[in-house]
Amino acid sequence: MTIEYATPYRSRSHIPPDLGRPYFVEKGQGDRAHLFGDLFTIYAGGEQTENTFNFFTCEGPKGDVIPSHSHPDTYEVFYITAGAVRLFVEDTEGEQYERLLTTGDFGFVPKNCPHAYRIERHHSQIVGVAAGPGGTFERFFESLGAATLDHGLPRTPVVPEPHRFGTVPQEHDVLFLPDHRWRTAG
Amino acid sequence: MTIEYATPYRSRSHIPPDLGRPYFVEKGQGDRAHLFGDLFTIYAGGEQTENTFNFFTCEGPKGDVIPSHSHPDTYEVFYITAGAVRLFVEDTEGEQYERLLTTGDFGFVPKNCPHAYRIERHHSQIVGVAAGPGGTFERFFESLGAATLDHGLPRTPVVPEPHRFGTVPQEHDVLFLPDHRWRTAG
Repeated sequence: MTIEYATPYRSRSHIPPDLGRPYFVEKGQGDRAHLFGDLFTIYAGGEQTENTFNFFTCEGPKGDVIPSHSHPDTYEVFYITAGAVRLFVEDTEGEQYERLLTTGDFGFVPKNCPHAYRIERHHSQIVGVAAGPGGTFERFFESLGAATLDHGLPRTPVVPEPHRFGTVPQEHDVLFLPDHRWRTAG
Repeated sequence: MTIEYATPYRSRSHIPPDLGRPYFVEKGQGDRAHLFGDLFTIYAGGEQTENTFNFFTCEGPKGDVIPSHSHPDTYEVFYITAGAVRLFVEDTEGEQYERLLTTGDFGFVPKNCPHAYRIERHHSQIVGVAAGPGGTFERFFESLGAATLDHGLPRTPVVPEPHRFGTVPQEHDVLFLPDHRWRTAG
């Protein structure tokens, strides 16, 4: 038995739009979005948790470091369930850290800490939780990128038009840091 | 490089006690506790997220259905990263659901919904997030069970003394439902 719902985000979603309903989502069947070369899949968000937390996955090809950014009001978990991901984080005093995370490893990025990552093996997967006192921001990926019904990675990278970087990220507590540099060895 | 901290919960922990510090935890190295036959491992909690969310894993042997319970103020995620787990949930109108979840599958239990699970394969692992507007309650496992430095399952089940069920669960937003019955097929 699979129940599908019409929600503010999808005409057919496995995530119920109303609060208080138990639900199940099979692997890969969450609300999906492509952004750059990656696939993001949302399994729960603010509507289901009274805005306390969300739950999503990120899959991407082995590639370059993603754009550095920070979240003024959001704490973020990186939990690796497949492959290998190098996480770069800077604390609020300017100290930089870099760590290769593999299956079962965990990284925590507090609010206001610049961070980025580089997927270092094909078929890697990150489980993410990103939330803070101001709420959750799991719809950033489809707002800046594109909602999709596909299950795989984008065939060609989904690169937002430049002017959209001026408004969309801020609405989702994302602050891109184009001048940021990683001085760590990696 | 591995940093260890003294915290309110452990004399040596990989989770920093102060807010705002980035950190990394290798697989299995979070704060561990045994309760009944299971191993719970905390990777983040309320102190790290301004009480918005936590992140933990649960591993256990193939076994019986755990005691049914609900959380008056807590939403809970069950995300399976290994093995197979049967999740039982009842909604607030009394409708019961049962689903076998395997690697990559997701289940969501809203507050006030009675639920239980049965681990159906040895070496299964559940990733959990449990939080709500009232905060997070990740220290329930070691408060009712026992903190441990071991990495594996308990050699013998950690069964709390009966009188502790009268106080500890309530302090962590856990309401045991000893008379609850699952009418689902499983």
